[in-house]
Amino acid sequence: MSGSVSPLAPKSFATVPALRGVRMATASAGIKYKNRTDVLMMVFDKPASVAGVFTRSKCPSAPVDFCRANLSHGTARAVVVNSGNANAFTGKKGREATALTAKSASAAVGCGENEVYLASTGVIGEPLDATKFSGVLDAMAKDATGDFWFEAAKAIMTTDTYPKVATRTAEIGGVSVTINGIAKGAGMIAPDMATMLSFVVTDADIAPAALQALLSEGVGPTFNAVTVDSDTSTSDTLLMFATGAAAADGQARVETAGDARLASFRTALNELLKDLALQVVRDGEGARKMVAVTVAGAESDVAAKRIALSIANSPLVKTAVAGEDANWGRVVMAVGKSGEMADRDRLAIWFGGIRVAVDGERDPAYSEAATSAAMKEEDIDIKVDIGLGNGTATVWTCDLTKEYVAINGDYRS
Amino acid sequence: MSGSVSPLAPKSFATVPALRGVRMATASAGIKYKNRTDVLMMVFDKPASVAGVFTRSKCPSAPVDFCRANLSHGTARAVVVNSGNANAFTGKKGREATALTAKSASAAVGCGENEVYLASTGVIGEPLDATKFSGVLDAMAKDATGDFWFEAAKAIMTTDTYPKVATRTAEIGGVSVTINGIAKGAGMIAPDMATMLSFVVTDADIAPAALQALLSEGVGPTFNAVTVDSDTSTSDTLLMFATGAAAADGQARVETAGDARLASFRTALNELLKDLALQVVRDGEGARKMVAVTVAGAESDVAAKRIALSIANSPLVKTAVAGEDANWGRVVMAVGKSGEMADRDRLAIWFGGIRVAVDGERDPAYSEAATSAAMKEEDIDIKVDIGLGNGTATVWTCDLTKEYVAINGDYRS
Repeated sequence: MSGSVSPLAPKSFATVPALRGVRMATASAGIKYKNRTDVLMMVFDKPASVAGVFTRSKCPSAPVDFCRANLSHGTARAVVVNSGNANAFTGKKGREATALTAKSASAAVGCGENEVYLASTGVIGEPLDATKFSGVLDAMAKDATGDFWFEAAKAIMTTDTYPKVATRTAEIGGVSVTINGIAKGAGMIAPDMATMLSFVVTDADIAPAALQALLSEGVGPTFNAVTVDSDTSTSDTLLMFATGAAAADGQARVETAGDARLASFRTALNELLKDLALQVVRDGEGARKMVAVTVAGAESDVAAKRIALSIANSPLVKTAVAGEDANWGRVVMAVGKSGEMADRDRLAIWFGGIRVAVDGERDPAYSEAATSAAMKEEDIDIKVDIGLGNGTATVWTCDLTKEYVAINGDYRS
Repeated sequence: MSGSVSPLAPKSFATVPALRGVRMATASAGIKYKNRTDVLMMVFDKPASVAGVFTRSKCPSAPVDFCRANLSHGTARAVVVNSGNANAFTGKKGREATALTAKSASAAVGCGENEVYLASTGVIGEPLDATKFSGVLDAMAKDATGDFWFEAAKAIMTTDTYPKVATRTAEIGGVSVTINGIAKGAGMIAPDMATMLSFVVTDADIAPAALQALLSEGVGPTFNAVTVDSDTSTSDTLLMFATGAAAADGQARVETAGDARLASFRTALNELLKDLALQVVRDGEGARKMVAVTVAGAESDVAAKRIALSIANSPLVKTAVAGEDANWGRVVMAVGKSGEMADRDRLAIWFGGIRVAVDGERDPAYSEAATSAAMKEEDIDIKVDIGLGNGTATVWTCDLTKEYVAINGDYRS
C-alpha cells in the first residue's frame, strides 16, 4: 500500500449495509504484507447464482483458470481472495495452490469444490503458499458476518490507497433488493502491484444465465471503459453473486436477462459497476487528475470506444494532462493512430468544456487563459467530435505522473 | 532541444562523405527556435528516383499528404524540411503552406512542383508561416553543397539531443555505390516535440519502383521495429532518393527489386536503416537504457512482432527497466495482453542473457545477484521464447523514466 492516499479519493465512503445471504471474514495470513489483513472469505449459506468476467490475457493466473472452469456449474457457496501474491505464472504449483484452497474452503463451508471461487492479487511468478491461509478457513467460515464490507474491501488492497465500496438499491416486481460491491486496483496489473478484482453481491433472486448476461452487458461502459496504463493483468476478475434471499419477501425468481422486471435492477447494477470502476481509476498509480474522454461522431460506438481508448492510453496525452497542458495536438495524434476513420478537417476537440480546435485547426475563439484555468481542475473532460457518424463512447483514465514511474520503477535494493 | 545529451548517444559520429548528385543547405528561418538552423534543403541536379514510407496516422500532416500525392511521379529534384512546426492539423492553411513552399522550391531549382518533397516537424496545430523560409530557398539552392550531412541532420532536430547520421557502401554489378542517411526522433510524436523523419540518398541508379520495394521491405525490421512511447506521429516520413550518379561509373540501372545485383546494396541499406532507427531509440525522450526485445517460438513472425511490441510498449515493463528490475512477471503480463497465442507453461524469459523463468515458473537456477548486475548495464536484452512455433522478431525501445514525464508533462507557465 502506498504511504499517502490518492488526492482523488472519495471525500467519504459509502456505508454498505449487510446483505442477506452473504457473510464475510478476513484474516492476516502474512502472505506478503505485515500488520494487515490479506485474506477475505465470503460465505453463501445457501447456493448463490454466480456470474463472472475475467482478464483477456492469454496467460491468466491459476485462480482465473479455476473460476472459469467452475462457472458452468452456476452456483457458489464460498469465495476466497488473497492479496500479496497473484498465483500467476506459477505453473503446476499454482494449480496445486488453487486445489488446496478449494479443498479447504469446501471442507470449511460444507460444499462442493465446484461451488468455490478464488482470486489472488500481488506478485506474479512467486509460488503461493496456500497452506498459510487454508488452515484458517474453518474459523473464518464460522466467524463470518454480514456487516463487514468495508473490512472486506481493505483485505484485498495492494497498491490501492483506499478501499473501494459501493451500494445501490433497486426493486424487482415491487420487492426491494440491494446490490453491494467491493473492488481493488490500482495499476492494471502486476508484480508487487495491482490487478483489478471486484466482487458484487445482491440478495435478488436471479438465475445464473440472467446474472451473467446482466454482468457481461454491464461491464462494457464501466469496468471495460477504464484504463490506468493500458496494461492488462493476468488476474483481472469480476464476480457477481445473487443470494436469492429476496425470494423470502416474495420476489419471484428472474430467469432471463430480458425480463422486464429487471429495469430498475439493471440501472442500479450499472451505476454500481461504474461507481466502483471510477473509484479504481481515481486510485490509479500516481494519479493526480481524473480524465473522462468522450468521443462522439465516430462511425460506430465500437470505433468511438477504440478512439477514446487510444486517447486515454496515450502517454503523451496523459503527461500533458499531468502538466495541465490542453495539448490538443496530442489528441489529434491519438485519434490518428487509433486506426479508425477520421477526417482531420472535421475534428473538433474540447478540454474542460472549452472548444480548442474545430474544422481541422485551432478554434479562432481559443483562449489560453480560459483553457489553462480549466486544466487546473482535478477532473478533466476531453471531448472529441469526429464529425463522421453517430458513434459515441466515454472512457476514464488518469494522468501519467512522475509518481507513476516512481511507484513502478524505483530501484529494487 | 534538450539541455543535455542522451547518455545513450553514440560515442562518436560517422563521417558521412559527399554523395554524387545531391547538394544540401541549411538556414535559420526562426520558425520557432532561436540561434539554430531550422530549414534543410536538398537539391538533386538531375532527377533522382524517389521512394517513401509515411505515418499510418489517419490524421496525417499536410506535408505527408503532399509527398504521398507526388510519389507516383517517381522522381525528385528538391526536398525542403523544417523543424519547429509540424504543419499538422492546420487545415486549409496547411495546404496553402505546402503549396507555397513547393512553388518556391520549384522556382529555386527549376523543376516541377511534383518533383518537390516536403517534411515538417514540431508543434501540431499552429499555422506554419511558410513565407519565413520560402524566400530563402533561391539562395539555398545556389549555395547547396555536397559535404554537408552533419549540418543537415542538425537542422531537422527537435527534442533530439544529438544529430543522427549514417553511411554505408555497397556494390552493384561491380560498381561501388554509397548510401547516406540522416534521421531525427525523439518521442514518436508531437507538439513542441518530436516525430520521426529520415532522408536516405544513394548515388546508385535504381528505378523508382525498385527503390520503393527495397525501402518498404527494409523498414519492417528497422524503423518499424522501434518504439519510444507507442505514440504515432502525424508526420512520420522516411524518404529515399537514388541520384543515379553511379551510372557514370558504368553501373547499369536496376529496374526491379528482384535484381540479383542488389544483394550487397540491400544488405547495406538495411544496415543503414537499422543504424538510424537505433540512433532514434537511443535518443528517446528521457531514455537511460536501450532495450532490445526478442521474441522467438511464436506462431509466426507477425505474431512474434506483435508480442515484442506489446512488451516494448508496456509502461510497466519500461518502468521496471528504468528501475533496473528484472521484473519478468510484467513480461508475462505483456505477452498475455498481446492477444497472440501463448501458453504460460511453455514460456521462458531471459534478461541480459540470464534465464529467469522457464516452463511457467521462476527458473530454479535464478540468481538475484547475477540478474541485478545484468540490469545495471546500459543495453538490456529481453528475450522471450513462446515455445509454440518458429516465429521470431526483435524490436527496440528505451526505458520509461521520470525524465520522460518531465519532458512531456512539465507545466506550461
